[in-house]
Amino acid sequence: MNLSNKHILDMTTLTREDIGLILETAESMKEVSERPIKKVPTLRGKTVVLFFHEPSTRTKISFDVAAKRMSADSIGLAASGSSIVKGETLIDTVKNLEAMRPDIVVLRHSAAGAPHMLAKVLEKPAIINAGDGMHAHPTQALLDLMTIKEKKEKIEGLKVSIIGDIQHSRVARSNIIGLNKMGAQVVVSGPGTMIPKGIEKMGARVVIDADEAVKGADVVMMLRIQKERQKGFMFPTEREYARLYGLSPRRLGLAGDDVLVMHPGPINRGVEISPEAADGPWSIILDQVTNGVAVRMAILYLVAGGA
Amino acid sequence: MNLSNKHILDMTTLTREDIGLILETAESMKEVSERPIKKVPTLRGKTVVLFFHEPSTRTKISFDVAAKRMSADSIGLAASGSSIVKGETLIDTVKNLEAMRPDIVVLRHSAAGAPHMLAKVLEKPAIINAGDGMHAHPTQALLDLMTIKEKKEKIEGLKVSIIGDIQHSRVARSNIIGLNKMGAQVVVSGPGTMIPKGIEKMGARVVIDADEAVKGADVVMMLRIQKERQKGFMFPTEREYARLYGLSPRRLGLAGDDVLVMHPGPINRGVEISPEAADGPWSIILDQVTNGVAVRMAILYLVAGGA
Amino acid sequence: MNLSNKHILDMTTLTREDIGLILETAESMKEVSERPIKKVPTLRGKTVVLFFHEPSTRTKISFDVAAKRMSADSIGLAASGSSIVKGETLIDTVKNLEAMRPDIVVLRHSAAGAPHMLAKVLEKPAIINAGDGMHAHPTQALLDLMTIKEKKEKIEGLKVSIIGDIQHSRVARSNIIGLNKMGAQVVVSGPGTMIPKGIEKMGARVVIDADEAVKGADVVMMLRIQKERQKGFMFPTEREYARLYGLSPRRLGLAGDDVLVMHPGPINRGVEISPEAADGPWSIILDQVTNGVAVRMAILYLVAGGA
Repeated sequence: MNLSNKHILDMTTLTREDIGLILETAESMKEVSERPIKKVPTLRGKTVVLFFHEPSTRTKISFDVAAKRMSADSIGLAASGSSIVKGETLIDTVKNLEAMRPDIVVLRHSAAGAPHMLAKVLEKPAIINAGDGMHAHPTQALLDLMTIKEKKEKIEGLKVSIIGDIQHSRVARSNIIGLNKMGAQVVVSGPGTMIPKGIEKMGARVVIDADEAVKGADVVMMLRIQKERQKGFMFPTEREYARLYGLSPRRLGLAGDDVLVMHPGPINRGVEISPEAADGPWSIILDQVTNGVAVRMAILYLVAGGA
Repeated sequence: MNLSNKHILDMTTLTREDIGLILETAESMKEVSERPIKKVPTLRGKTVVLFFHEPSTRTKISFDVAAKRMSADSIGLAASGSSIVKGETLIDTVKNLEAMRPDIVVLRHSAAGAPHMLAKVLEKPAIINAGDGMHAHPTQALLDLMTIKEKKEKIEGLKVSIIGDIQHSRVARSNIIGLNKMGAQVVVSGPGTMIPKGIEKMGARVVIDADEAVKGADVVMMLRIQKERQKGFMFPTEREYARLYGLSPRRLGLAGDDVLVMHPGPINRGVEISPEAADGPWSIILDQVTNGVAVRMAILYLVAGGA
Repeated sequence: MNLSNKHILDMTTLTREDIGLILETAESMKEVSERPIKKVPTLRGKTVVLFFHEPSTRTKISFDVAAKRMSADSIGLAASGSSIVKGETLIDTVKNLEAMRPDIVVLRHSAAGAPHMLAKVLEKPAIINAGDGMHAHPTQALLDLMTIKEKKEKIEGLKVSIIGDIQHSRVARSNIIGLNKMGAQVVVSGPGTMIPKGIEKMGARVVIDADEAVKGADVVMMLRIQKERQKGFMFPTEREYARLYGLSPRRLGLAGDDVLVMHPGPINRGVEISPEAADGPWSIILDQVTNGVAVRMAILYLVAGGA
């Protein structure tokens, strides 16, 4: 079985079957990382370029670990060390990369749509979007789906509340689409300035009051306040934000007993999430990271041609 | 058969036979990158240090890909992350590297002659010059020779016109020497301020008028305007430069029908080369990049001891 | 046989037996780097994260080379490319790393005690301290011990004089402890402003006059003047420092004929060490670097579970 599409660009281009295939493959990949010898020869002789324009710990390392555990050759490329600083266009840079015959190019870029543009101009390599501007972050949504499914044994019918800066969040956008495809109900909550107009059309119900949003939720997904992205003030102070939208023990108590707390990281402790909420038994934040490696192994495997 | 010299420092130290051996080896290496499994065990257990002082996409990645496809261990070292920032001399840094027993050190450095100096002080590892100041860039010249030979089935007797900032170009210097060794006729063209005195002694005929230089050329090699290298103004404006020396469709039309257009990259679209010239069927710019991996595989193989 | 402790945090947590085991293992690892094929499969499928917060050539490359020669997957992570710049705490960053299932985390950090803190919060991976603030640099001390033992055939009973900025030197601290454990006598010398109060309790005799300190020494270990660490002036000028504490040929002549000269690098030629002292037959500075790879191979091997 194969993916319906050569590239992983966003959640809209993945079918429900694609998502099912990725999650299933990831579940079987996961145990590789639990072995004493964490290595399979599956992608030996494949070249994976990790082309990251924005700083990243988790995502870049996660792909690097995934590639190496599959025995692929992983080639890192940061914008600062690249020809970009010499004024080359992104298309020229990537056509040059293509000429070196990589099998897969993983791209993180500050411009929404950059991976889609590359997918159009490149002939051979598969493109994996590792985050493009405020647009999409499909591998994050997939690892989130995997983690929810692993813990709840289903996705269908769950109520998932995503709280925070929905406006600037590619994680939120990709999760809303993915969760809808898999049959979950999605609620979004945050300050009015952070809720994009028309988000309901993507399949999210807007609930401005965070207490309301948390009530009865099976999963609460907190978003990072991305200080580095926000010019101008979208909320008065961090303390005010924490009180109105942060996940405190009190607010978390409004959800069911078996609620799960998620966060794409890195977390701002005491801002969008309290240490109690981040570190308690309901928190599956680090499971997300572990599953991130498994999901990326699965994706590298599937876009490289599968079995 | 082996190279006559342990190191690859510049084109002057390579004999015509050396060049022939490198091109032949590269031609046989090239198909490795076209296989589904792009990996041969040839350099397993060899350590290749990539020591780059200047920003580079193409050359560093090309060597990294080449090393990994040969199964070598590739160790990256950038000036910014190195002891250089702590005031250590280049010789001490590299003697320290040598003490870790690399087999090959690939060096890019802003100082002309740096690789030659290292070749004198190091006992064991082979040095490959990946560009030193305005002096030499032998692996670029070799991949250019390979690409010309691949497309024209010969080098001998061809007329190759190199146009642009000859003065600051290590690519031009290495190509003039290499092309002469292989029997081509070389013409250089550019603003008077960019033509070094005495270039004729290296075997290049100077033709100030770019139209004249292009007329009847089998190969036109455009050089990058290296804005980052030029302090002061060597030409009035980019537009003026494009008009006088850029490769426009009109100017390209002055060459023969089977002219080839080359550029070492990264290209400045609309400055030294028009999009039409860069992207048309005559352009072999991306072939140069593909052959770059093959030439570097061949060089790593040959300096590591060959067969 | 195994180490008594899972982590390598500083020299105080290593027993005399641990040190003996590491040196013995390193001696047997050393010949791997002298083979034509410098690679053993020992750590295949192990993931080693190199997490370096401070610039480093020698130590990071040394670990990278060691990991790759053992066939481990080596994953680099610099502070500048990490979530640290997004305000994540060190503990959260490293818990995230842990979730990706590395076997070993090598940490260099500007904060003394950072590796100890991580060892407490992480459950699975072994931590190797690659230098923490002014506190400890155990792998440097171990490679120094290995080099002394290799050249002198013993450590017990030797007189080792460490000269320079003892106050700011994690290398000095780790060596004082290690040398004492192995039965050497340690003398420290330097300007009064650079000798920490109470250093005698660690087992070092203070001799302010450098000539006195060198007299009769079997080993003279010069420390780097770390210009980048010193705010304010601890000595009048570099020339003055060189005269009073630098290792000149005259001063070196005060030691025995078979004195050894060591330096952790990078060296400041003409400041703490003269070129004659650094480059003469008594200098074992580059042996230290070669042994650094062997010691790190041994440590990676032993903390990963040994044989």
